[in-house]
Parts: sequence; structure tokens; C-alpha cells
Amino acid sequence: MSTALPMVVPTQGLPARVRIHEVGARDGLQNEQRSVPTEVKAEFIRRLAAAGLTTIEATSFVHPKWVPQLADAEALFPLLQDIGTRGTGGSGGSGGSGGSGGSGGPGGPGGSGRSGGTGGTGVRLPVLVPNARGLERALALGATRIAVFASATESFAKANLNRTVAESLAAFGPVVAEAKEHRAHVRGYLSMCFGDPWEGPVPVHQVVSVAKALLDMGCDELSLGDTIGVATPGHVQTLLSELNEEGVPTDAIGVHFHDTYGQALANTLAALQHGVTTVDASAGGLGGCPYAKSATGNLATEDLVWMLRGLGIETGVDLDRLTDTSRWMAEHLGRPSPSRTVRALSKPPQEQ
Amino acid sequence: MSTALPMVVPTQGLPARVRIHEVGARDGLQNEQRSVPTEVKAEFIRRLAAAGLTTIEATSFVHPKWVPQLADAEALFPLLQDIGTRGTGGSGGSGGSGGSGGSGGPGGPGGSGRSGGTGGTGVRLPVLVPNARGLERALALGATRIAVFASATESFAKANLNRTVAESLAAFGPVVAEAKEHRAHVRGYLSMCFGDPWEGPVPVHQVVSVAKALLDMGCDELSLGDTIGVATPGHVQTLLSELNEEGVPTDAIGVHFHDTYGQALANTLAALQHGVTTVDASAGGLGGCPYAKSATGNLATEDLVWMLRGLGIETGVDLDRLTDTSRWMAEHLGRPSPSRTVRALSKPPQEQ
Repeated sequence: MSTALPMVVPTQGLPARVRIHEVGARDGLQNEQRSVPTEVKAEFIRRLAAAGLTTIEATSFVHPKWVPQLADAEALFPLLQDIGTRGTGGSGGSGGSGGSGGSGGPGGPGGSGRSGGTGGTGVRLPVLVPNARGLERALALGATRIAVFASATESFAKANLNRTVAESLAAFGPVVAEAKEHRAHVRGYLSMCFGDPWEGPVPVHQVVSVAKALLDMGCDELSLGDTIGVATPGHVQTLLSELNEEGVPTDAIGVHFHDTYGQALANTLAALQHGVTTVDASAGGLGGCPYAKSATGNLATEDLVWMLRGLGIETGVDLDRLTDTSRWMAEHLGRPSPSRTVRALSKPPQEQ
Repeated sequence: MSTALPMVVPTQGLPARVRIHEVGARDGLQNEQRSVPTEVKAEFIRRLAAAGLTTIEATSFVHPKWVPQLADAEALFPLLQDIGTRGTGGSGGSGGSGGSGGSGGPGGPGGSGRSGGTGGTGVRLPVLVPNARGLERALALGATRIAVFASATESFAKANLNRTVAESLAAFGPVVAEAKEHRAHVRGYLSMCFGDPWEGPVPVHQVVSVAKALLDMGCDELSLGDTIGVATPGHVQTLLSELNEEGVPTDAIGVHFHDTYGQALANTLAALQHGVTTVDASAGGLGGCPYAKSATGNLATEDLVWMLRGLGIETGVDLDRLTDTSRWMAEHLGRPSPSRTVRALSKPPQEQ
């Protein structure tokens, strides 16, 4: 069934292609209770690349004490050398690199033939760095794309970074500057853009202010995170409009929705209608909350690809290969994938 | 958290209010393996009404052999007399009754104070009837709103009704006529509007043709079903536009999405953007597929209400009371609710 459905109905007012920023290997695995061997992580990323994903966040160079699941970053990253971008690194510029220019295009899902990142061929493999020490470790291994993470709210900045928002921005400034010095592409994650568990609704102007600070310090791209999954589509479009009005171009904006309340895909549609072309998602919906085995945090890449395919939007992703990869990973993790599309495509035909 | 979130952001180009057609007690329970006592069903419907739902599909007068879970229709329906519409029954007209006119409005979630159905006060309690015998049984008990079900595809008509599409429409004609004779409001369910497990994509003109036949025979309202959950937003809008072009007004159209591939809420957003004001949903996401305990079929009413609330669209539904009801029902069914919103609101605050 998967080859004929969904029916492809090209839809006006939407981007022609979307670049999926795959976060399963980092954001997904960092919350898994079961430890995943380094070789399995490498194979996971390899399979994601073979399924056509062109931007795969590989790991985090955070201190192992904080995220023990990703303590093997130094061992993992070199294993990915053959699929990563080669050459002199990221774009080094600002603006357009967050747009659709680097999308996989209509090519097949195989490991070759896709247009890679800027400055080389192959897959983009950004890594998260929390500070100067993390950046140093990442650059030493040849990382050309890094990501930093800030919070739109004081409560979460305090809880997650043990700093005020202003203090965390001040601390990231030199890290971003150093990364740009090395011609790395820098993504700025911004958490709690729509709601905060302590503060409730987050004022739009507050998010815009931190977003602008991240771009001003040199970030090439933002990822607007709905960390607790409470956003709804009108809120998304309002934030995007406000960012544009304050001079932030849409092609510098990625969106990162969580499916905690089932809203992630509707919010994604709203973002696409606004012109956003970079969407974060996690293969198989990895990165769940601990409450229930099947409750998800991140938007599942497969559910996203299903929608994009139906809308006639190119991603370069082979849904069957991606679904196979998520099933394979689910076996390693010992729990079923929370992605509805993965489950639906895993059923025998008569149950579909 | 639930009182402050989601942030309400009224959004242009969307309806001011939506009438939720709650199907959990019928479409949800008919697929449950565990038998539910009649008194529990009555209490479920009572609690749904107390949560502010104004249209609650109560049961089906299908032969018990086919749907044993609903074999107690004759015993159940009279138990609901005090919450149902009183008076002379449905609107008897066509068109507007499918629109937003009868929505619960801004009133509280209690059992009183809402504008009821046409011709009486209280909650609308439609029942499904498969044929003349079913209609007779329903009318004998005082049902004033009935629903018939047709298929947009030959394969499903054969599988579900053991008839061709034309034969099934011919068989429903006298049933609908008889219902109208009794001034009942008639809803026409149309299955497989977007994809069919045997036939793949379903041509839009084929759906339009059956939809028009249902309206021509006297149905007051349609419910366009994505029975296998494969629709995407552009497909939804294309079908709605095509129906309009063929003379079917939007206010005669309800939408019924399944979340099999996680697309239901995004599709609902697309329908709202087209002007649809009647949305089918199932409390707690009841009505799952048998493959996985938590995989859902129907769009969960709570996930829908979360989005509508954030968009500033009135439903009259109290989300906390509805969530409590779904948790209560989940205990009776011995499995957790598949609704993500129900799960999220059931977590202790620190995990949110």
C-alpha cells in the first residue's frame, strides 16, 4: 500500500521542498533508558542517511555526567566520517543556509547522488555543544556544523542551564564566535517558545527577543522548540509573523514540535503555510517522555514524511527505508516505535 | 497547567465555533474487545454530555450478530431520555443543520444551559441504522437523529455491506425517506473518501458522486470518512473544493479523520481553513485498531479540543471534565487512553 498512498495532491502556497533536520540520534537517544552501543548508533545514522535524510544531528559534546547516553561522542563521530560532509566545513554565512537550498532534492534514497551540505559532499552531521569545551572537542574531531541551546524562559534557563537567559546568552557568545572563526555552521536551539511548565504561556515578544540575540551573535539558523508540546497552529503563525516583522527571515527559521498533546503535525502544517522549509523530526518518534511507553515527545519523521509526500513536497526521503530503520532501532531499544506511521506500515496488509 | 495552556491565539480565516460530533460511545466502543455493561455506556454518555459535548452518537441499531458490542441498543437508548433532545425531533430541513448553528456556544460545561438540538432542549443523540429494520427500532424508541453509512469505493461496499455502491445507495433511499417522513435528522457517513486498502487512492470525483447521491436522497449532513487514515491536508481541501463546485455547501459537510498515520489533526486544520464546522472525534481516541494497544483509529476529542482552544474556536467543551471521563472509561476498558492529550494531562506536573 505504501507506494500508492498517500495520494499526492500538490498544494498551493506551500514550499516545493522541505529539509528535515533529523534529531533521533541525538535528541531521541539522549532520553532513552536503555544504553545503545556506539556501533549501533553509527549504524542507525548510516541507515538514516541511506533512507535519504541529509541533515542528521549525530550526538552531543555535553559533559558525560549530564547526558550519559551520549558520553561516547568522541568514539561515535569519527565512525561517521565517510557519510559526513567533507571539505572546509559549513557555509560560514548567515541566512540562506537555513532554507531549502540544501535539501536532498528528487534524487534516490541511496547513499550517493544527493547534493550534500555546503563545502563538501555527503550528509550534514551537526553536533550539539553546550560550551567552549564542548566546541573544542567537536572541532577537534572535524565537526563543521554545531548547535547551541538557549531558553526563551527564565525558569527553564535556570532549570536546564542553571543561568539566567541573559547569562546563558552571554556565555554562548564566545562559543558561537569561535565556531564561526572555524567556519562552522551554527544552529541555535530555542526551548520553550510556546509554553513553559512553570510559567505557562510564553509571551511572543520574549521569544523574539532571545531569537534575535541568537542571530545577532552569529547563529546561522534557529530551531524554535515547543519543548512541552503545547503550541497550536495560530500561535505558531503568530510567532513566525512577529519574527519576520522584527527582521528575522523565514529561511533562517526551523521548527521543532513535540507531539505531547498530538499537535506537532498540525503545527508543522501551519509553519509550512508560513513558508518554513526546515522541520525537525525524530525517526520513529524517538525521545519519548517517561510516562508511557508509547507517548512521544518529538514529532516522528515518518508521520512528517507521510504528510509532506501527500502534499507533494520533496524531502528526498524513502519512507519504506526510514520505517525499516525505525523498526530496527525499536528492536534495539526493546520497545515499539511511537510513530503512528511506523506502526501502520508494520501491520499485515489485511489490518491496514 | 491546563487552565493557562494552550495560549489562546484567535486566528483569522477560521470558524468562530465548531460542533464536535462525538463518536466514542458508538464508533469507539463497537471495536472494543472488552464488553461494556449498558449502565456504564449510559454513564459514559452522561459524562460526555456533562463535559459539554452537544452531539453524542449513542449506539447503533445494527443486527447484534454484526456488532455484538452494541447489541444492547434497545436497553441503552431509553436510559438517555433525560439528556436527549425532546420535542418533535430533528430539523427536517437540509443544509444549515450541519453547520455551526447548534454548537454549544460559550456556556459552561454543565448539563444545562446549552442550546440543544433543533426541536427541543438537551443533547443530540444520533444513532446509526443500517436498514429499514434498524430505523424502525430506532424510531420506536424515540430517536430523532439517525445516521446511515455508505462507501465511496466498490471494494469496501462489498466488504462492509456486501453490495455494490449503487445497490447500497438504492437500499438506503427508502430508509432515508422514511426517516425524513418521521422528521428525523439524517447524517450520511461516507467511508473510504481518501484511500482504500484494496483500491489505493480514491478519485475525488468518485467521492463527490456518492456524496451528492446521499444528499439527493435526503441526508441533511455528510460525514466524510478517512477510514484508513491516509489523507493529507491538500487532499482534504481538494475534496472539499470539488464538493463545493458540485453544489454541496460546506455547512452540510462534517469530517471524520482517523489518526492511523498521525494525520488527523493536520487534516482537521485544513478542513477548518476551508470553513468546515462539524468535526467527528472520539473521546480518549476510543476505537483503536487491534494491532497495538495504543494505536488509534479515531481522532481523539481531547487532542481536537486542545487545538480548537488554542485557536480560540468555541466548542463548549470542558477539557478537564472530558479528560476525566476518558480516564474513567479507560479504566473500564482495562487499557490506557490512546489520546496524547489525555496522557499528558494525566501526568504529575513535574513530568509535564
